[in-house]
Amino acid sequence: MTDIVVIGGSAAGMGAAGAAKQVDHDARITVFTELQDVAYSPCGIPYVHGKEIDSFDRLILQGKQFYEDQGFEIHYETVVSSINLAAHTVTVPGMPDVHFDRLVIATGFQYEKPDIPGTELEGLYYVRDIRAAERWDKVLDDVKVAVVAEAQPLGVEMATALAHRGIETHFVDPHPWAMAEIADPDIMAPVEESWRELGVHIHFNTRIEEFLGTERVRAVKTSDGEIAVDAVVMGTKKLPNNRLAADAGIKRGSTGGIIVDQHMQTSASGVFAAGDAVEVPQGTTGVPVQGLSGSHAYAQGKVAGSGAAGTLRSYQPVYVPWGLVGGKWMIGGVSFGETLAGALGIPFVLGVAEGISRARYYPDYKKIRVKLLAEPGTLKLIGAQLVGGEGIKERCDFLAMAARQGLTLHDIAWMENVYSPAMGALNEPMALAAQDGLAKAGQ
Amino acid sequence: MTDIVVIGGSAAGMGAAGAAKQVDHDARITVFTELQDVAYSPCGIPYVHGKEIDSFDRLILQGKQFYEDQGFEIHYETVVSSINLAAHTVTVPGMPDVHFDRLVIATGFQYEKPDIPGTELEGLYYVRDIRAAERWDKVLDDVKVAVVAEAQPLGVEMATALAHRGIETHFVDPHPWAMAEIADPDIMAPVEESWRELGVHIHFNTRIEEFLGTERVRAVKTSDGEIAVDAVVMGTKKLPNNRLAADAGIKRGSTGGIIVDQHMQTSASGVFAAGDAVEVPQGTTGVPVQGLSGSHAYAQGKVAGSGAAGTLRSYQPVYVPWGLVGGKWMIGGVSFGETLAGALGIPFVLGVAEGISRARYYPDYKKIRVKLLAEPGTLKLIGAQLVGGEGIKERCDFLAMAARQGLTLHDIAWMENVYSPAMGALNEPMALAAQDGLAKAGQ
Repeated sequence: MTDIVVIGGSAAGMGAAGAAKQVDHDARITVFTELQDVAYSPCGIPYVHGKEIDSFDRLILQGKQFYEDQGFEIHYETVVSSINLAAHTVTVPGMPDVHFDRLVIATGFQYEKPDIPGTELEGLYYVRDIRAAERWDKVLDDVKVAVVAEAQPLGVEMATALAHRGIETHFVDPHPWAMAEIADPDIMAPVEESWRELGVHIHFNTRIEEFLGTERVRAVKTSDGEIAVDAVVMGTKKLPNNRLAADAGIKRGSTGGIIVDQHMQTSASGVFAAGDAVEVPQGTTGVPVQGLSGSHAYAQGKVAGSGAAGTLRSYQPVYVPWGLVGGKWMIGGVSFGETLAGALGIPFVLGVAEGISRARYYPDYKKIRVKLLAEPGTLKLIGAQLVGGEGIKERCDFLAMAARQGLTLHDIAWMENVYSPAMGALNEPMALAAQDGLAKAGQ
Repeated sequence: MTDIVVIGGSAAGMGAAGAAKQVDHDARITVFTELQDVAYSPCGIPYVHGKEIDSFDRLILQGKQFYEDQGFEIHYETVVSSINLAAHTVTVPGMPDVHFDRLVIATGFQYEKPDIPGTELEGLYYVRDIRAAERWDKVLDDVKVAVVAEAQPLGVEMATALAHRGIETHFVDPHPWAMAEIADPDIMAPVEESWRELGVHIHFNTRIEEFLGTERVRAVKTSDGEIAVDAVVMGTKKLPNNRLAADAGIKRGSTGGIIVDQHMQTSASGVFAAGDAVEVPQGTTGVPVQGLSGSHAYAQGKVAGSGAAGTLRSYQPVYVPWGLVGGKWMIGGVSFGETLAGALGIPFVLGVAEGISRARYYPDYKKIRVKLLAEPGTLKLIGAQLVGGEGIKERCDFLAMAARQGLTLHDIAWMENVYSPAMGALNEPMALAAQDGLAKAGQ
C-alpha cells in the first residue's frame, strides 16, 4: 500500500487527494491542514462580508463525513513542522513521524506583510479561513470606518464588499490605479468610478507608513495624512507559503514559488507540489508565474495527486484567464495587458473595441470593452484585458484558449458568433477588437 | 465608375453595400428593397410584441439620412422583377433597366407556407418587416387566443413573446418537441416546462390540417381537434427566397439556396450572393447549410460586397453557433446535436455535464447543461448543444471556434478557466462535459 501525504487542505490539496484516490483506490491518503475545515470556498468570503451571500455555511462544499466516507485520513488544525526527504517522513508535533512514499506540498499562499511599524496591532484582518472570517464578520458589525490596505485582487473584492456593507471604506494603494501590476488603467477606470458611486474613498498614489494604536489599530498613517479607523483589511499581495519546502531544500524559482516540472514534480524525488506555493511557465514566454486562481490550483492538484499515485499526467503552460468583480463591473484578462507587456518589454499590436453584450435595443444590455494584444508580424494573440457588465469570464476563457492554440487576430476578427437580440449582439466585441488590431497593423 | 447593384436591404444587403463602399469609394452603389426601411433589426420584433422592448423605433439602427450621407442610392418599397445576366441589367417596373457591373443578390428568406386549406385567410401573421409588425402589434391588443403554428426558431420566440404579453397561446407542431430538427429533446425539456409555467398550451405531435374561417381565421383545425383563435402566428421554416436567381438561371443547391464559392460568387459571372438566400458548406462535413443567423448574413454580405467592389475575400465554411431564448432559458448549439447527427448517420462520442454559471453559493447562479459531440477516434469536437440561464451565447462561440480549429475533447477537458465566485464556477461546465466524453471513450 502506497502512503501518500498531502500538506494542505485547500483547492490544490483536496484536488490532489481526490485524484490520487481515483488513480489508486488502495493508497493510504493522509491530509494535514492547519484549518478546521477542508472543502470550503475561501474565495466566497468577501461576498459574505458584503452581505451578498447570507451565511458562511453556504461556502462549505462538503461535510467532514464525506471525506471520511471516501477513505481519506484528514488531520484538522494540525501543523506539519518539517519535511525529512531522506527519511521520507514529515514531522507533526505531538505525533510519531509520518511516513510517505509520495508527498504533495499544497501549502498555498500567505499575504505579504508590509515592513512598517504597527503590523502586530489587533484589528488588522488578513482574509483567509472561514472560521476567522466568521469572527471577523461579527467585528465588522461594529466597524464604522475601515481601510483596505492595497488594491491587489483581494483588496478590490474587499473594498467592494465593505462598501456594499455600508462601512465607510478608505482604499489605499501606492500605485496610480488598482491592480496596477496586472490591469490597465482604462480597464480599471470604470471600476474606480463605480467605487466612488458606492462611497469608497480612493487614496491611490498613497503609501501606508504606519499602523497607529496601542493594542488595537486606531489609525493608518499614510504619505497623505492619517485616517482614523476601526479596522484594516489587508489586501496585499499573495506570496507563496513555502517555508517547509525551503527548509527541506526543495528548489524555488524566481517568483519564490516551488519549481515543478510538467508533472508537478519538485526537485525532490517523490515530492509533488501544486497551487499557490508553486510557479509554472506562462505559455507565450515561458516566464514562470505564480499565484493563479483556485481553478488553476485545483487542476494542478489533480495532476500532482495523479502523479503521486503512480500515473504521471501533464500540466500545460498557462495563459491565465482571470477575472473578478470590482464595484458594479466585471474585469478580466488573459496573460498580458498593455501595462504588464510594456513593463516586461514585450512588443505588441493593440486592438481595442467597445461592444455590447446583447442587442442595443434589448433591456439591460451591457457594455463590454475588449483589448487584445498580438505579437507583431504573426499577429498571434498574446494577451487581453476586458471590462464589462456580463460575459467577461466566458470571453476570457475563449481568449485563453485562443492564445494557447496560437490563434491570430485574423482568426478572431472573422469568428462566427451567436446573434440573438436577448443573448448576444450582431457584432461580437472580441471580433471588433481584433478587426481594430488588424487595421492598426495595416491589414 | 463601377455600378454595383444590391437586391435586398437587410443584414446581407447592407453589409454588402457597406463593404463595397469601403473597398471602392467611387463605386455607384444602388440598393433595392421591397421594404420601407433598411438598417433595422427584424430579429427584435418578437421582443417588442412580448413587451420586453417598448417600441419598434428602438429597432431602427440608422436613419435614412445616414445612408444618403454615405453616398448610397437606396430605393425603398421597390420590387426588382428580373435579372438579365446577358445585358447586365435588372428590371424594375416603372424604371428604365438598371445596369450593373456587379450584382449582389441578398433576397433573404420567406416562410414555408403549409400546403393546406385556409392559408389565404386574414389573421395569419408572418413576422418579418417592422411596418407590418407595427400594424400587427395593434391587432394583438385585441387578440385573446392565438395559435403559433410550428415550433421552428421564430415560433419558439413568438410563443414566448405572446405568453409574456398575456395572450392565451397554443403552440402547435407536428414533432414531439420544439425545434426537433435542430435541438435535442433534453435541451428543449426545460424550455417546454418553462412555457407551461408561462401558461402556454403545448400541442406537439399535432399537425395543423386547416385554417378555418370566412374572411378571417376563426379556428385552427388540428389532428387533435379544433382551437378557436383570434390570430395565428406562422412560425414555419425559413426557406431561401430566390425566385429572381432561379429565373435568371443561377445555380441552386440541395437546400434550395444559391450556390456560392468561397468568395460568395454565384454561378453567374459578376454576380455575388449572401445571406439567407444562399447555402454555404458546414465545416466538418462539407454539407451545404442555409438559413443561418443575421450575424452570418452580415459577414457573408461583407465578403460579397468586398468582392463586388473588386477585392475578393474568402468566407470560411461554417460551424454555425446558434442560440435563442425560449421561455426563461437560453438554448444554443454548434453544428450537430445528438438528434441531427443521428439523423445524418454521423457517428459520435457524447459527453454531457450539468454545471453552474457562478459559484453555487453565489446568488442567482444559473444551471448550464452542456452536450459535446466528438468524432470517434480523433475525439475532435463536431457539435454541441447547451441550455442554461446565462453564458450560453459565449460558450457556443467558444465551441464553434473549437470545432473550427479541430480541438479535441482533451483540449476542452483541461482548458483553463476564470474562477471567481461572482462570475464563474470552479469547474467550467464545458470542461466537465468533455471529461465525461473522455471517460465514455475510455480515456
